[in-house]
Formats: sequence, C-alpha cells, structure tokens
Amino acid sequence: MSKPKLFIPGPVDVAPETYAAMAGPAIGHRGKDFEELYSSIQPGIRQVVGTIRPVFFSTSSAWGVMEGCIRNLVKKKVLNLCCGAFSDKWYGVAQSCGKEADKIQVEWGQPIAPEAVRKKLSEGGFDTVTLVHNETSTGTLNPLKEIADVVKSFDDILLVVDTVSSLSAMPINFDELGIDVLLAGVQKAIALPPGLAVFVTSDAALERAASVEDRGYYFDFCEFSKNDAKDNTPSTPAIPHLYALRERVDTMLTEGLGSRFDRHKANNAMVHLWGKRHGFELLPPKGFRSLSLSCFVTPENLDQAGWIRSVISNHGFAINGGYGKIKGKTFRISNMGNETSETMQELLDALDVELPKFLS
Amino acid sequence: MSKPKLFIPGPVDVAPETYAAMAGPAIGHRGKDFEELYSSIQPGIRQVVGTIRPVFFSTSSAWGVMEGCIRNLVKKKVLNLCCGAFSDKWYGVAQSCGKEADKIQVEWGQPIAPEAVRKKLSEGGFDTVTLVHNETSTGTLNPLKEIADVVKSFDDILLVVDTVSSLSAMPINFDELGIDVLLAGVQKAIALPPGLAVFVTSDAALERAASVEDRGYYFDFCEFSKNDAKDNTPSTPAIPHLYALRERVDTMLTEGLGSRFDRHKANNAMVHLWGKRHGFELLPPKGFRSLSLSCFVTPENLDQAGWIRSVISNHGFAINGGYGKIKGKTFRISNMGNETSETMQELLDALDVELPKFLS
Repeated sequence: MSKPKLFIPGPVDVAPETYAAMAGPAIGHRGKDFEELYSSIQPGIRQVVGTIRPVFFSTSSAWGVMEGCIRNLVKKKVLNLCCGAFSDKWYGVAQSCGKEADKIQVEWGQPIAPEAVRKKLSEGGFDTVTLVHNETSTGTLNPLKEIADVVKSFDDILLVVDTVSSLSAMPINFDELGIDVLLAGVQKAIALPPGLAVFVTSDAALERAASVEDRGYYFDFCEFSKNDAKDNTPSTPAIPHLYALRERVDTMLTEGLGSRFDRHKANNAMVHLWGKRHGFELLPPKGFRSLSLSCFVTPENLDQAGWIRSVISNHGFAINGGYGKIKGKTFRISNMGNETSETMQELLDALDVELPKFLS
Repeated sequence: MSKPKLFIPGPVDVAPETYAAMAGPAIGHRGKDFEELYSSIQPGIRQVVGTIRPVFFSTSSAWGVMEGCIRNLVKKKVLNLCCGAFSDKWYGVAQSCGKEADKIQVEWGQPIAPEAVRKKLSEGGFDTVTLVHNETSTGTLNPLKEIADVVKSFDDILLVVDTVSSLSAMPINFDELGIDVLLAGVQKAIALPPGLAVFVTSDAALERAASVEDRGYYFDFCEFSKNDAKDNTPSTPAIPHLYALRERVDTMLTEGLGSRFDRHKANNAMVHLWGKRHGFELLPPKGFRSLSLSCFVTPENLDQAGWIRSVISNHGFAINGGYGKIKGKTFRISNMGNETSETMQELLDALDVELPKFLS
C-alpha cells in the first residue's frame, strides 16, 4: 500500500529510523527501564526547547495540552490571540471549559500586533494569554518575543505559546523568552508520527495550577511536575513515541541545532523563490512568514484540486489545498522535518511538471 | 538492549506483527486514507466490544477517557465504586474535576456487591456511577451484569465501566448490558503498546454530554460522535496505534473471539493451578477472580523481590510485585494478550526454578 510522501503541514514524512525506534522493547512504565528512557530524552529535548527546566510528555495531541493550559491556568479571564484556524479554535476551547474568554481577532494571514495586545490587556481582568507562534493554517509567524515582552510587562498574566509547527525548525528559547507554557505536538516540525505532545511550564504556571481546584487529572501540570521528579509521567505514556522522540532528538543534535535551523531556512527560501517565479503570492505579509511552511494564495486561473491530485498520482508527493475557511483558496507546502534541498527540489520539480496542465 | 518479556498486568508483550503494523505509511488525518483506516477498524472492534455503535479512538491513556466520563456526564453527583488502586483513584479524579462525588469503598481484593450499590443509589442525588470491571491492582473481577441491572433500575443514572484488563480477554457485550460508557486502554488485554484508548457511548450518555456546558474539548463525547460520522477523530490521532489496532483486531477475529476467550480462561486456570500447588492464596474470593491476571498473596517466608529479580535476570521473564498499598504483599501474573499454554508454561517453569532459592 504505497502512499504519497507528505509535504503537508503535518503529519509530515517520517524517517525509517524513527519507525525502527518505535519498535523498541515493551517495558513497564513504573520501573527503571522507563525512568532511564525518560531521563535519556531530557537533555536533548531541553536544548531544543531552550530550557533548563523539565520537558513533560503528554500522551495526547497538542490540543490536549492546549485545553490543559486553560484548565490549569485560567482563574479570571483568558485572552486568546486569534489569527487562523488553530488560534481561533483555542478561544472556543476556552469557552467549552466554562472559562471566561475574550479575544483579539485579526484577519487570517495577518500577524498579532504586540501593541494591540498591550491595549487589550490594559482593559484589565485577564490572567492568561494564548498565542499560536506559527499559525499552521495560514503560514503566519507571530512576533513571539515582542508579544512576550508586552505580556511580561503586566503583573500576574501568564503567556501560553503553541509552537507545534515551529519548535525545532527555528530557534526558540523558553528560558530567555520568559513565557509560562510552551507546547508542541510531535508530528509536525519534529517529524514523529502523531500521538504525543511535549510541553514545559514556568514556576509561575505551576504555582497558578496548584491554586486551581477543578483542574482535573489527565492534564494536571502539578501531576506532571510531581512525576517528573521520579522520571515518570502521571498516566501510562505512549512508550513507542518516546523511543522515537529520543531517536529524533539525538539525530537533531548530531546534525546540530544551528545547522537544522539553517536547513529549514534555506529550504523555505527555495519554496518562496519557486512561488515568486510563478507569481504566487504568500498569504502572510513580509516579515511574518513561517520558516517551516509556505501558504500561497491560489490564483484564480489555477485548478488547484486537479493540480494537487495530479502531483499525488503522477509523482507521489502530497501538498495541502488549504485549511478551514481558506480551503481551496490557498495551498500550503511544508518544509518541516527531515527534508533536504534535494528532496525539496524533487517536490518543486514535480509541482512544475504538473502546473501547466491546470492553469487556464 | 534486551528487556525481559512482560507478564506484568500491562503493558504486556507486543507481537512483532503489531510493531510492523505501527510502521504503516504516514498519512494525513484529514483525508481519505485516514477515513479508510478508521472505518476498516470499526466492524472488528465493535465485535470485540459487543456493540453495533461506533467505537471511538482517544489518543490518551484510559485515564483520559475516565476523566472524560466525569466531565461529560456528571451534573449532580457521581458514585465511585472503589475496590482497588484504579477504582479508588477515579473518586479522586472526579473531585479534581470539581464534581460532587461519593463512594462505596470495599477492602482491596473484595468485589463490589450489587445490593450495596442499590442501597447507596437509593439515597438519591446521583446521576453517574463508575465501575472498574476487572480491577487490575487486585485481580478482582466485579459482577458487571448484576451491577448494571441495579443501576438500570434507577432513572437517569448512567453507568460507566472501565474494561482496561478484561476487554478481549472475556465476553463483554455493551449492547446487551445496557451500560452507558465502556472504555479500555489498549496496552493490556488488547496487547498494543500504550498510547491509545477505545470507548463506546450510549445515546443517553451523548444526550447527557450535550447538556453539560463545561465538558471541554479534548474528551468531548459529542465531538467524538460528530467526527465519527465522517470516519474521523476530533484531534490528531495516534495513527501508528490505529494501524496496530487494525492488525490486532484482525488477528483476534482470525483466532475467533470464542477461541480467544477460551485460551485466556485455560491459561488463567494454569496459573491458578500452579499457585495452588505452591499453596499461594489468591487475593480475591472465589467467584470474583479475574480471567486475565492472577493476584496472589505473598507468603511471609518468600523473599518476593529477590525471586522476581532472579526470574528476570536468569530467565528474562517479568512478573509484578504488587501495586499501590499492596506492593510487596502480593504478586501478579498476567495471561493477557498473545500468550499460549506453551508460553505460560515457560513462565511457570522459570518461576519454579527460582522459587526454592527465595523461600525460607
């Protein structure tokens, strides 16, 4: 059963070595073998996240931890910064947890302006802010540092950042940013199969969580912290994914994080250049474009669905035809994970071969 | 890195075919390939659960869905039936969700008496009951049908049943029982690596959930139902585990569910007979003993820790030395998953070889 190689913005293509690692031996999760596995991943994943703090492993997709942030941290009101499908949805999830929520909503593709955050927070009443660093639905990279600086200038407001499609593709330093939760699923930039999320919490986030009585159990930050002290997780973990994460992190460090970031930047630039050559416009404005995926506006004279289908069937490569309310109106090309300039060129060549057949 | 073969009550030993299945091709989860995978598992897993209703796949351990049951269903008060580590913990989890909870607590090893449930529910005020069918920490099998009949005799009380270590090891028929949620992790009787839970909900459970406003998103039963209609899951699913679940369910149906249940019964009887020969007493009383794992009381003249270590290092088989407050005072042997009379005999022989060295 052959399937196209995925250049969609997650899940992405998985290396054979990663699959091999997943088949590591069955071990009990309440014993020394598991504790060794857990602790062996920590130094590497902490480098990737830019922290000296423990990185927690949640057996869930990123959404589980995103809901967990709401349940653990929001006592008064959360401000959701909304600029695309995933950041918009976080606002709905906050409400579904019975929490008071407000939002800044910008047009899809546009970034969040730090000054707008300052103005909104000045209204008062907020204790938590959610931000999607790299909005996967639009390819928009938000100004993380600038927004973090704004939030930090207010007392007792925690900043929660989803880095699902940026973590390990570009430099992020949790400790320097001074943010409160950083989280990511592993099936995007980290190039694991889906089924695990990683996250790190500040002391302030743990203190806040400890004071929230109905925060629950499965995503309870305090439980993660307590179990981390024993190199363990609160609930039965996805052991195959942890074996695979160890393999991926080791591979990242062998490549060197700097080289990895450079590779992503260069591959991303190749895609931008290819788009420019065809006159395709990127959805996000200059200065706010993702380094891990490119979201182009579909020209009116392009039969996009036909083109994508044809690239799949004739070349075995899959790109994505837009998400949510911009489905069909945009297309997205991922350069996340293990791609090289050679494999990106193979994709771009395939796109080029099929393109003229679908332009009118 | 060789690890002992696991005869602990989960995770259990995983077949090479299951690992091979996990390495199925990376596919997007919002497309036809995933929908085909999802729907291909349904007929088989529904047979295992004994239902014509859809079986939902949660990327979490069973605890995620156990918390989900609380968040989706409890509006007034939950009654937790407590008889061991896991059933006891459910009471704590209910409270951590900010819900009103009461419990029936019996001594670890003892089963829950249906008449006690009737008496407690007659006090009034309850809308949900939680039961662990096969309490993994004590090896106690609760009288599911009798308790279900009691709960059903009350109006508007939903019964939620954890079948983590019984589902696929013995006959369970969701539809005939008339219960409201059945859930299980996959790393015990189903013999997958950990990282996924399966569950099924009644119409009454879905209706109740729809009326609970702060039920959240990640474990929202209504979201699972809505996405199931499109052969999909609310959040990014653990695709490798779904490939593996398909493989396991196909294997179960090839063996035949009846033969599978018989095999578990026979293997379990072998362990009981072995225990009897040594004068080891089972913790649960007759008539309430698990068919998938055996929990023995540790005799005072046995250096249990030394024995278990020695079986691991000299034979490569791991059994478990007790859980929670009966750790060290009991030992547990699993016959879940893919074990045969031959592989069970290998284990029992190894236990026999080492035993005399640790008896005083």
